[in-house]
Amino acid sequence: MNYPNGMKKNFQRQVDYSNRGMSLESEINLSNEYYRDSGIAYIYKKPTPIRVVKMSYLAKDKVVIKEAFFERPSTTDYNGLYRGKYIDFEAKETNNKRFFPLANIHKHQLEHIRNINNNGGICFLIVRFVKLNETYLLWARDLIDYLDQNKNCSIKHEYFESKGCLIANKYCPRVDYIEIIDKYLEVFNR
Amino acid sequence: MNYPNGMKKNFQRQVDYSNRGMSLESEINLSNEYYRDSGIAYIYKKPTPIRVVKMSYLAKDKVVIKEAFFERPSTTDYNGLYRGKYIDFEAKETNNKRFFPLANIHKHQLEHIRNINNNGGICFLIVRFVKLNETYLLWARDLIDYLDQNKNCSIKHEYFESKGCLIANKYCPRVDYIEIIDKYLEVFNR
Repeated sequence: MNYPNGMKKNFQRQVDYSNRGMSLESEINLSNEYYRDSGIAYIYKKPTPIRVVKMSYLAKDKVVIKEAFFERPSTTDYNGLYRGKYIDFEAKETNNKRFFPLANIHKHQLEHIRNINNNGGICFLIVRFVKLNETYLLWARDLIDYLDQNKNCSIKHEYFESKGCLIANKYCPRVDYIEIIDKYLEVFNR
Repeated sequence: MNYPNGMKKNFQRQVDYSNRGMSLESEINLSNEYYRDSGIAYIYKKPTPIRVVKMSYLAKDKVVIKEAFFERPSTTDYNGLYRGKYIDFEAKETNNKRFFPLANIHKHQLEHIRNINNNGGICFLIVRFVKLNETYLLWARDLIDYLDQNKNCSIKHEYFESKGCLIANKYCPRVDYIEIIDKYLEVFNR
Protein backbone atom coordinates (compact mmCIF):
# COMPACT_ATOMS: atom_id res chain seq x y z
CA MET A 1 0.00 0.00 0.00
CA ASN A 2 1.49 3.34 -1.03
CA TYR A 3 0.87 6.74 0.52
CA PRO A 4 0.20 9.72 -1.80
CA ASN A 5 3.84 10.78 -1.48
CA GLY A 6 4.98 7.37 -2.69
CA MET A 7 6.17 6.35 0.77
CA LYS A 8 5.48 2.74 1.68
CA LYS A 9 4.12 2.02 5.09
CA ASN A 10 4.49 -1.37 6.66
CA PHE A 11 1.46 -2.16 8.79
CA GLN A 12 2.88 -5.44 10.03
CA ARG A 13 3.70 -5.73 13.68
CA GLN A 14 7.29 -5.08 14.60
CA VAL A 15 8.71 -8.32 15.87
CA ASP A 16 12.21 -8.68 14.53
CA TYR A 17 13.11 -5.02 14.63
CA SER A 18 12.92 -4.60 18.37
CA ASN A 19 15.91 -2.28 18.57
CA ARG A 20 14.52 0.08 16.00
CA GLY A 21 11.10 0.43 17.62
CA MET A 22 9.69 3.42 19.47
CA SER A 23 10.96 4.26 22.89
CA LEU A 24 9.05 2.76 25.79
CA GLU A 25 8.04 6.27 26.86
CA SER A 26 6.50 7.07 23.47
CA GLU A 27 4.65 3.77 23.43
CA ILE A 28 3.27 4.33 26.93
CA ASN A 29 2.21 7.86 26.02
CA LEU A 30 0.35 6.48 22.99
CA SER A 31 -1.24 3.74 25.11
CA ASN A 32 -2.38 6.30 27.69
CA GLU A 33 -3.87 8.41 24.89
CA TYR A 34 -5.74 5.35 23.68
CA TYR A 35 -7.01 4.58 27.21
CA ARG A 36 -8.12 8.21 27.67
CA ASP A 37 -9.82 8.50 24.27
CA SER A 38 -11.66 5.20 24.76
CA GLY A 39 -12.74 6.17 28.27
CA ILE A 40 -10.96 3.10 29.71
CA ALA A 41 -8.57 4.81 32.10
CA TYR A 42 -7.26 8.28 32.75
CA ILE A 43 -3.51 8.16 33.16
CA TYR A 44 -1.02 10.89 32.31
CA LYS A 45 2.63 11.82 32.62
CA LYS A 46 3.69 14.26 35.31
CA PRO A 47 5.79 17.28 34.32
CA THR A 48 9.54 17.02 34.93
CA PRO A 49 10.40 19.03 38.05
CA ILE A 50 12.55 22.08 37.29
CA ARG A 51 14.20 24.40 39.81
CA VAL A 52 14.01 27.98 38.55
CA VAL A 53 16.95 30.22 39.52
CA LYS A 54 16.55 33.36 37.42
CA MET A 55 13.51 34.86 35.71
CA SER A 56 12.85 38.11 33.93
CA TYR A 57 9.58 39.82 33.08
CA LEU A 58 8.91 40.53 29.42
CA ALA A 59 5.47 41.99 30.10
CA LYS A 60 2.91 41.98 32.90
CA ASP A 61 1.96 38.34 32.48
CA LYS A 62 4.90 37.13 30.43
CA VAL A 63 7.82 35.66 32.30
CA VAL A 64 10.89 34.13 30.71
CA ILE A 65 13.06 31.76 32.74
CA LYS A 66 16.73 32.66 32.25
CA GLU A 67 18.35 30.04 34.43
CA ALA A 68 16.97 26.76 35.71
CA PHE A 69 18.01 23.19 36.42
CA PHE A 70 16.33 19.82 36.05
CA GLU A 71 15.66 18.33 39.46
CA ARG A 72 15.77 14.65 40.30
CA PRO A 73 12.18 13.48 40.24
CA SER A 74 10.88 12.66 43.72
CA THR A 75 7.82 10.85 42.40
CA THR A 76 7.18 8.45 39.53
CA ASP A 77 6.53 9.55 35.96
CA TYR A 78 2.97 8.39 35.50
CA ASN A 79 -0.17 8.40 37.55
CA GLY A 80 -3.90 8.49 37.18
CA LEU A 81 -6.95 6.41 37.81
CA TYR A 82 -8.67 3.29 36.59
CA ARG A 83 -12.10 2.24 37.84
CA GLY A 84 -11.76 4.76 40.66
CA LYS A 85 -8.45 3.26 41.81
CA TYR A 86 -5.19 5.12 42.11
CA ILE A 87 -2.56 3.96 39.58
CA ASP A 88 1.10 4.97 39.80
CA PHE A 89 4.11 3.71 37.89
CA GLU A 90 7.56 4.33 36.60
CA ALA A 91 8.76 3.12 33.19
CA LYS A 92 12.37 2.29 32.36
CA GLU A 93 14.30 0.75 29.51
CA THR A 94 17.57 -1.10 29.78
CA ASN A 95 19.97 -2.31 27.10
CA ASN A 96 21.33 -4.85 29.50
CA LYS A 97 20.19 -8.41 28.72
CA ARG A 98 20.71 -9.96 32.15
CA PHE A 99 20.12 -7.22 34.71
CA PHE A 100 17.98 -4.18 35.37
CA PRO A 101 20.33 -1.67 37.08
CA LEU A 102 18.60 -0.08 40.07
CA ALA A 103 20.59 3.13 39.55
CA ASN A 104 17.83 3.85 37.02
CA ILE A 105 15.47 4.62 39.91
CA HIS A 106 16.30 7.37 42.41
CA LYS A 107 16.07 6.93 46.17
CA HIS A 108 13.16 9.38 46.46
CA GLN A 109 11.26 7.50 43.79
CA LEU A 110 11.68 4.25 45.72
CA GLU A 111 10.39 6.05 48.81
CA HIS A 112 7.40 7.27 46.79
CA ILE A 113 6.70 3.73 45.53
CA ARG A 114 6.73 2.43 49.12
CA ASN A 115 4.33 5.21 50.19
CA ILE A 116 1.90 4.52 47.37
CA ASN A 117 1.98 0.82 48.15
CA ASN A 118 1.41 1.42 51.89
CA ASN A 119 -1.54 3.68 51.16
CA GLY A 120 -3.34 1.09 49.05
CA GLY A 121 -2.51 2.43 45.60
CA ILE A 122 -1.87 0.21 42.59
CA CYS A 123 1.82 0.74 41.98
CA PHE A 124 4.34 -0.94 39.69
CA LEU A 125 7.36 -0.63 37.42
CA ILE A 126 7.29 -1.20 33.68
CA VAL A 127 10.73 -2.40 32.60
CA ARG A 128 11.72 -3.08 29.02
CA PHE A 129 14.72 -5.24 28.20
CA VAL A 130 15.27 -3.60 24.81
CA LYS A 131 17.62 -6.23 23.34
CA LEU A 132 15.34 -9.09 24.39
CA ASN A 133 12.22 -7.24 23.21
CA GLU A 134 10.53 -8.07 26.52
CA THR A 135 8.47 -5.66 28.61
CA TYR A 136 7.55 -6.61 32.18
CA LEU A 137 5.23 -5.20 34.77
CA LEU A 138 6.68 -5.69 38.26
CA TRP A 139 4.33 -5.00 41.19
CA ALA A 140 5.63 -2.58 43.82
CA ARG A 141 5.36 -5.22 46.57
CA ASP A 142 7.67 -7.56 44.61
CA LEU A 143 10.11 -4.69 44.02
CA ILE A 144 10.00 -3.81 47.73
CA ASP A 145 10.47 -7.49 48.73
CA TYR A 146 13.50 -7.65 46.48
CA LEU A 147 15.00 -4.43 47.86
CA ASP A 148 14.44 -5.56 51.44
CA GLN A 149 16.03 -8.97 50.86
CA ASN A 150 18.90 -8.05 48.53
CA LYS A 151 21.68 -5.56 48.74
CA ASN A 152 22.37 -5.83 45.00
CA CYS A 153 22.32 -2.74 42.86
CA SER A 154 20.47 -4.53 40.09
CA ILE A 155 17.60 -6.96 39.61
CA LYS A 156 18.27 -10.10 37.60
CA HIS A 157 16.28 -10.78 34.46
CA GLU A 158 15.18 -14.09 36.06
CA TYR A 159 13.41 -12.18 38.83
CA PHE A 160 11.27 -10.46 36.20
CA GLU A 161 10.62 -13.86 34.58
CA SER A 162 9.45 -15.39 37.85
CA LYS A 163 7.73 -12.46 39.61
CA GLY A 164 6.94 -10.02 36.80
CA CYS A 165 4.09 -10.12 34.30
CA LEU A 166 5.10 -10.10 30.64
CA ILE A 167 3.21 -7.41 28.72
CA ALA A 168 2.31 -8.62 25.22
CA ASN A 169 3.41 -6.60 22.16
CA LYS A 170 0.28 -5.22 20.56
CA TYR A 171 -0.58 -2.72 17.90
CA CYS A 172 -3.07 -0.74 19.95
CA PRO A 173 -2.57 -0.08 22.77
CA ARG A 174 1.10 -0.84 22.32
CA VAL A 175 1.80 -1.43 26.01
CA ASP A 176 -1.44 -2.85 27.37
CA TYR A 177 -0.66 -2.76 31.08
CA ILE A 178 -4.36 -2.31 31.97
CA GLU A 179 -4.92 -5.92 30.90
CA ILE A 180 -2.49 -7.01 33.65
CA ILE A 181 -4.17 -4.72 36.22
CA ASP A 182 -7.53 -6.26 35.30
CA LYS A 183 -6.25 -9.76 36.10
CA TYR A 184 -4.83 -8.48 39.39
CA LEU A 185 -8.11 -6.82 40.40
CA GLU A 186 -9.98 -10.01 39.48
CA VAL A 187 -7.69 -12.23 41.53
CA PHE A 188 -7.93 -9.98 44.56
CA ASN A 189 -11.62 -9.40 43.97
CA ARG A 190 -11.26 -5.66 44.42
CA MET B 1 6.62 32.36 75.03
CA ASN B 2 9.84 33.68 73.52
CA TYR B 3 12.07 32.04 70.94
CA PRO B 4 15.87 32.05 71.49
CA ASN B 5 16.23 34.99 69.14
CA GLY B 6 13.77 37.00 71.23
CA MET B 7 11.03 36.67 68.63
CA LYS B 8 7.56 36.17 70.06
CA LYS B 9 5.38 33.58 68.47
CA ASN B 10 1.65 33.71 68.84
CA PHE B 11 0.22 30.22 69.06
CA GLN B 12 -3.36 31.44 69.17
CA ARG B 13 -5.56 30.63 66.27
CA GLN B 14 -5.74 33.29 63.63
CA VAL B 15 -9.27 34.48 63.50
CA ASP B 16 -9.26 38.21 63.18
CA TYR B 17 -6.14 38.49 61.08
CA SER B 18 -7.43 36.60 58.10
CA ASN B 19 -5.71 38.83 55.57
CA ARG B 20 -2.33 38.39 57.17
CA GLY B 21 -2.46 34.60 57.37
CA MET B 22 -0.49 32.09 55.33
CA SER B 23 -1.42 31.57 51.75
CA LEU B 24 -3.87 28.76 51.06
CA GLU B 25 -1.15 26.93 49.14
CA SER B 26 1.25 26.98 52.10
CA GLU B 27 -1.48 25.79 54.43
CA ILE B 28 -2.42 22.94 52.11
CA ASN B 29 1.23 21.94 51.72
CA LEU B 30 1.56 21.83 55.53
CA SER B 31 -1.66 19.83 55.83
CA ASN B 32 -0.44 17.34 53.22
CA GLU B 33 2.85 17.00 55.11
CA TYR B 34 0.86 16.26 58.26
CA TYR B 35 -1.29 13.67 56.44
CA ARG B 36 1.82 12.02 54.98
CA ASP B 37 3.79 12.00 58.24
CA SER B 38 0.83 10.57 60.17
CA GLY B 39 0.21 7.92 57.51
CA ILE B 40 -3.34 9.25 56.96
CA ALA B 41 -3.13 10.07 53.27
CA TYR B 42 -0.47 10.51 50.63
CA ILE B 43 -1.16 13.67 48.67
CA TYR B 44 1.40 15.91 46.99
CA LYS B 45 1.72 18.87 44.67
CA LYS B 46 2.56 18.31 41.04
CA PRO B 47 5.48 20.24 39.53
CA THR B 48 4.61 23.32 37.48
CA PRO B 49 4.90 22.47 33.79
CA ILE B 50 7.73 24.35 32.08
CA ARG B 51 8.52 24.42 28.36
CA VAL B 52 12.26 24.37 27.84
CA VAL B 53 13.52 26.29 24.79
CA LYS B 54 17.31 26.47 25.21
CA MET B 55 19.69 24.34 27.25
CA SER B 56 23.45 24.14 27.50
CA TYR B 57 25.67 21.41 28.87
CA LEU B 58 28.01 22.35 31.71
CA ALA B 59 29.36 18.81 32.04
CA LYS B 60 28.34 15.31 30.99
CA ASP B 61 25.40 15.09 33.37
CA LYS B 62 24.93 18.74 34.21
CA VAL B 63 22.51 20.69 32.09
CA VAL B 64 21.54 24.30 32.63
CA ILE B 65 18.32 25.63 31.13
CA LYS B 66 18.97 29.00 29.48
CA GLU B 67 15.51 29.81 28.22
CA ALA B 68 12.16 28.40 29.27
CA PHE B 69 8.56 29.43 29.84
CA PHE B 70 5.90 28.52 32.35
CA GLU B 71 3.12 26.60 30.65
CA ARG B 72 -0.53 26.75 31.58
CA PRO B 73 -1.18 23.73 33.73
CA SER B 74 -3.36 21.14 31.99
CA THR B 75 -4.07 19.25 35.19
CA THR B 76 -4.84 20.26 38.77
CA ASP B 77 -2.19 21.14 41.34
CA TYR B 78 -2.67 18.33 43.82
CA ASN B 79 -3.27 14.64 43.65
CA GLY B 80 -2.63 11.49 45.58
CA LEU B 81 -4.46 8.77 47.41
CA TYR B 82 -6.49 8.19 50.51
CA ARG B 83 -7.65 4.73 51.57
CA GLY B 84 -6.71 3.46 48.10
CA LYS B 85 -8.91 6.05 46.39
CA TYR B 86 -7.72 8.57 43.87
CA ILE B 87 -7.87 12.17 45.14
CA ASP B 88 -7.44 15.19 42.87
CA PHE B 89 -8.01 18.87 43.53
CA GLU B 90 -7.20 22.43 42.69
CA ALA B 91 -6.85 25.17 45.32
CA LYS B 92 -7.57 28.83 44.69
CA GLU B 93 -7.86 32.02 46.70
CA THR B 94 -9.93 35.02 45.82
CA ASN B 95 -10.04 38.51 47.34
CA ASN B 96 -13.51 38.96 45.98
CA LYS B 97 -16.22 38.74 48.70
CA ARG B 98 -19.18 37.88 46.51
CA PHE B 99 -17.83 35.85 43.58
CA PHE B 100 -15.23 33.29 42.69
CA PRO B 101 -14.01 34.28 39.20
CA LEU B 102 -13.78 31.22 36.96
CA ALA B 103 -10.89 32.80 35.03
CA ASN B 104 -8.84 31.40 37.91
CA ILE B 105 -9.21 27.92 36.42
CA HIS B 106 -8.01 27.18 32.90
CA LYS B 107 -10.05 25.37 30.28
CA HIS B 108 -7.72 22.35 30.30
CA GLN B 109 -8.01 22.10 34.06
CA LEU B 110 -11.80 22.01 33.82
CA GLU B 111 -11.47 19.26 31.21
CA HIS B 112 -9.18 17.39 33.59
CA ILE B 113 -11.68 17.77 36.45
CA ARG B 114 -14.46 16.35 34.25
CA ASN B 115 -12.24 13.40 33.27
CA ILE B 116 -11.33 12.59 36.86
CA ASN B 117 -14.98 12.78 37.86
CA ASN B 118 -16.07 10.52 34.96
CA ASN B 119 -13.42 7.95 35.86
CA GLY B 120 -14.60 7.62 39.44
CA GLY B 121 -11.95 9.73 41.16
CA ILE B 122 -12.63 11.93 44.18
CA CYS B 123 -12.24 15.39 42.74
CA PHE B 124 -12.96 18.87 44.12
CA LEU B 125 -11.96 22.52 44.36
CA ILE B 126 -10.77 24.18 47.53
CA VAL B 127 -11.68 27.87 47.33
CA ARG B 128 -10.77 30.43 49.94
CA PHE B 129 -12.61 33.73 50.18
CA VAL B 130 -9.68 35.52 51.81
CA LYS B 131 -11.58 38.59 53.05
CA LEU B 132 -14.36 36.47 54.54
CA ASN B 133 -11.85 34.01 56.02
CA GLU B 134 -13.92 31.13 54.63
CA THR B 135 -12.54 28.07 52.89
CA TYR B 136 -14.90 25.79 50.96
CA LEU B 137 -14.60 22.40 49.40
CA LEU B 138 -16.77 22.19 46.27
CA TRP B 139 -17.23 18.71 44.76
CA ALA B 140 -16.39 18.37 41.06
CA ARG B 141 -19.95 17.25 40.24
CA ASP B 142 -21.37 20.47 41.74
CA LEU B 143 -18.82 22.52 39.82
CA ILE B 144 -19.69 20.66 36.60
CA ASP B 145 -23.44 21.09 37.25
CA TYR B 146 -22.87 24.81 37.68
CA LEU B 147 -20.79 25.10 34.51
CA ASP B 148 -23.35 23.15 32.50
CA GLN B 149 -26.27 25.26 33.74
CA ASN B 150 -24.70 28.71 33.82
CA LYS B 151 -22.85 30.76 31.30
CA ASN B 152 -21.46 33.08 34.00
CA CYS B 153 -17.76 33.60 34.29
CA SER B 154 -17.91 33.42 38.07
CA ILE B 155 -19.55 31.40 40.83
CA LYS B 156 -21.52 33.29 43.46
CA HIS B 157 -20.52 33.02 47.10
CA GLU B 158 -24.05 31.76 47.83
CA TYR B 159 -23.43 28.72 45.64
CA PHE B 160 -20.52 27.78 47.89
CA GLU B 161 -22.73 28.37 50.94
CA SER B 162 -25.43 26.06 49.63
CA LYS B 163 -23.46 23.36 47.76
CA GLY B 164 -19.96 23.60 49.19
CA CYS B 165 -18.63 22.22 52.47
CA LEU B 166 -17.06 24.75 54.82
CA ILE B 167 -13.62 23.58 55.96
CA ALA B 168 -13.02 24.50 59.61
CA ASN B 169 -9.95 26.58 60.59
CA LYS B 170 -7.70 24.34 62.64
CA TYR B 171 -4.20 24.44 63.95
CA CYS B 172 -3.12 21.07 62.62
CA PRO B 173 -3.86 20.16 59.92
CA ARG B 174 -4.70 23.71 58.94
CA VAL B 175 -6.97 22.77 56.04
CA ASP B 176 -8.52 19.47 57.09
CA TYR B 177 -10.19 18.51 53.83
CA ILE B 178 -9.81 14.78 54.62
CA GLU B 179 -12.48 15.23 57.31
CA ILE B 180 -14.92 16.28 54.57
CA ILE B 181 -13.89 13.36 52.33
CA ASP B 182 -14.50 10.98 55.25
CA LYS B 183 -18.08 12.20 55.62
CA TYR B 184 -18.57 11.82 51.87
CA LEU B 185 -17.22 8.25 51.84
CA GLU B 186 -19.45 7.42 54.82
CA VAL B 187 -22.59 8.82 53.19
CA PHE B 188 -21.92 6.95 49.95
CA ASN B 189 -20.78 3.88 51.85
CA ARG B 190 -17.67 3.50 49.72
